[in-house]
Amino acid sequence: MTGLPDLTAIEAMDAADPLRAMRDRFVVPEGLVYLDGNSLGAASPAAFAELEQAAKVEWGRDLIRSWNKAGWFEMPLVLGDRIGKLVGAAPGQTVVADTTSINIYKALHAAMSLRPDRTIIVAEGGSFPTDLYITEGVLSTRPGATLRLEGVDAPSIEDLIDENVAVVLVNHVNYKSGELRDMAALTKRVQDAGAVVVWDLCHTAGALPIDLDGANADFAVGCSYKYLNGGPGAPAFIYVAQRHLAEARQPLSGWWSHARPFAFEQGYAADAGIRRFQCGTQCILSMRALKGALDIWDDVDMHALRRKSVALTDLFIQLVEAKCEGLGLTLESPRDSSRRGSQVAFRHDNAYAVMQALIERDVIGDFRAPSTLRFGFTPLYIGFKDVWTGVEVLEDILRSDAWKDERFAVKAAVT
Amino acid sequence: MTGLPDLTAIEAMDAADPLRAMRDRFVVPEGLVYLDGNSLGAASPAAFAELEQAAKVEWGRDLIRSWNKAGWFEMPLVLGDRIGKLVGAAPGQTVVADTTSINIYKALHAAMSLRPDRTIIVAEGGSFPTDLYITEGVLSTRPGATLRLEGVDAPSIEDLIDENVAVVLVNHVNYKSGELRDMAALTKRVQDAGAVVVWDLCHTAGALPIDLDGANADFAVGCSYKYLNGGPGAPAFIYVAQRHLAEARQPLSGWWSHARPFAFEQGYAADAGIRRFQCGTQCILSMRALKGALDIWDDVDMHALRRKSVALTDLFIQLVEAKCEGLGLTLESPRDSSRRGSQVAFRHDNAYAVMQALIERDVIGDFRAPSTLRFGFTPLYIGFKDVWTGVEVLEDILRSDAWKDERFAVKAAVT
Repeated sequence: MTGLPDLTAIEAMDAADPLRAMRDRFVVPEGLVYLDGNSLGAASPAAFAELEQAAKVEWGRDLIRSWNKAGWFEMPLVLGDRIGKLVGAAPGQTVVADTTSINIYKALHAAMSLRPDRTIIVAEGGSFPTDLYITEGVLSTRPGATLRLEGVDAPSIEDLIDENVAVVLVNHVNYKSGELRDMAALTKRVQDAGAVVVWDLCHTAGALPIDLDGANADFAVGCSYKYLNGGPGAPAFIYVAQRHLAEARQPLSGWWSHARPFAFEQGYAADAGIRRFQCGTQCILSMRALKGALDIWDDVDMHALRRKSVALTDLFIQLVEAKCEGLGLTLESPRDSSRRGSQVAFRHDNAYAVMQALIERDVIGDFRAPSTLRFGFTPLYIGFKDVWTGVEVLEDILRSDAWKDERFAVKAAVT
Repeated sequence: MTGLPDLTAIEAMDAADPLRAMRDRFVVPEGLVYLDGNSLGAASPAAFAELEQAAKVEWGRDLIRSWNKAGWFEMPLVLGDRIGKLVGAAPGQTVVADTTSINIYKALHAAMSLRPDRTIIVAEGGSFPTDLYITEGVLSTRPGATLRLEGVDAPSIEDLIDENVAVVLVNHVNYKSGELRDMAALTKRVQDAGAVVVWDLCHTAGALPIDLDGANADFAVGCSYKYLNGGPGAPAFIYVAQRHLAEARQPLSGWWSHARPFAFEQGYAADAGIRRFQCGTQCILSMRALKGALDIWDDVDMHALRRKSVALTDLFIQLVEAKCEGLGLTLESPRDSSRRGSQVAFRHDNAYAVMQALIERDVIGDFRAPSTLRFGFTPLYIGFKDVWTGVEVLEDILRSDAWKDERFAVKAAVT
């Protein structure tokens, strides 16, 4: 792109967008510039329809019989394989269950069980915090095991990997900066040292094409309520490479992970396949909304998605830097799109107030402590005009000092 | 009750039932005798309405803003306190989150953390199996800890409790027989030996009045999709007595359990209250269906509920034993209603086939391996006429040998 596009050029970009029609399959409130699909993806008529069918017909009319008749029992596996398809996992390696945090717990224990003679977990100091909190929880149950942190014990995660490391827990896309790691290269580096890797795909799944099997990944976890649009708190997923399934053990060994859950045996026997990474009965209604959302993905070309994602984020950076120059913003995301996910972060000394002012004017991104404005671009329902409008409002708020109003002052933030 | 009631007497019982009007607040399909509310409770217009509001308005229109605006963040605590009210827990001790299996894992670890010098977990050989499987999972992460099982290591759980026992995990109502334990007495016995108790309330919550605080219980877990009617796989709950909250630690230390989840701190610090028993982001849609179901409970007198439950189960036993005498059924539940939950089990050599035949004729209970017919009686929407009809159909199936049809032959059962 050369020169700064004007509104006519922006509208031409929307008109030429091969994914433009996808927007009609989502509920995007009129007038809202929603740059927060990386926190909660938009709703869809497809999700509503599944939810209503599951509630009114399957629960309401068929009751307990729906566990078989409506396929509730198999849904974690069926939806797991469908997410697997979006992240490069062949069938039988992915299951939808529980939360990302709980799946990290399972994955870390399972990874440690594969390397019983090693005691170190490597993670990122800049990780989304739950990864670290859960790691502490795992360590609390494994006496002698310790943690090495990127940014604390060494500047780069690669420098922390040696023959004592059992497992490396790493985010594919950083939740704050959007920095994208090279999955194949880091996986190889970890495995060359004899360790296993757990990829956190929360900001990856549905945001860009990836290939877990092709990268020879060991484990992965991720959520379905961001780019996959599964609904608020939709259940998470876990991927375990086929080669580890027979051997990897995790201690959340509830009856759904048993080889014969309905034999009601007294002793535990783990299922031989990916079912062993389930635990208890899943939230069927929430899972059905996710099913509706996943139906939309059947028609999405992930490479077209990525091209549009790059175009959206490049445009946003270009417009912000041109229009808001000298207004206190600094790019926190990688400028090189090949090293960036589908989100852009800018630093501002008063990021909290600026984001509150944006939200009041119907431009929704989010604030991340202490000073980050984070904007997510979900190519299925965000257009180039949204980027244009978002930057216009941002510029106006900064130029007018509108964010200095006392109603935007920092308080105990919960978003 | 003297003599066998006839249909006129049964109809008079329904007419005099103070809970009769509650049935209209549920969706009970016409012609169905649903004696399986102890496996999946019935749906309700209230649950549907909450679900639709949460999906279409809060998710669809308000998107991320609903975490604050619609109270999504606080919902696990708000609903926790509402369930707490039904099980005798003062506010601030109960949270709705995750699954029963996962909450057992949290509770066992937390209980062990309170008794660091003790190594033994006591449980029931006849427990619902997930309790035992999860116990094995906990033991796998606590080297040196071991299990003592009622029915294996001694006939009675009381005989297994001594000064080496850290925690006793026990079902208040047995999932199969419906046998009801004396919560206050067993809690005292456990605590007199210096141990702590974890009560599994899956077949209790919403089935009969209980008083966790009054019994001085330490921990409790339970599900919300049975008698509480929260919907398929609705999230579970966990209760931790106030006196333990500051000290009890559980390793599923996700960000929702952190003292300051939105400060995005690198190090873990557990919340001081019941929030520390949360872990990750919950299934909001499923949780909202549960909220709708709980609204109904505001108008229920738990003692009236219990009176009706006893009358229903007493009637069922009386009618089955009178009408099906000599047809191969043996009562497996306690005959004394003061020792029985809201369910009745009969043994039959061909229980699987008999239950399939019943289901085909719209009388729904469930089969529990190897030879149990289990019938649940949820007083909010089951009437005395349902009991009458259910027994009539059961008698007919047994007298006519209808269950011997090959389509009811045992196969790999999943219900």
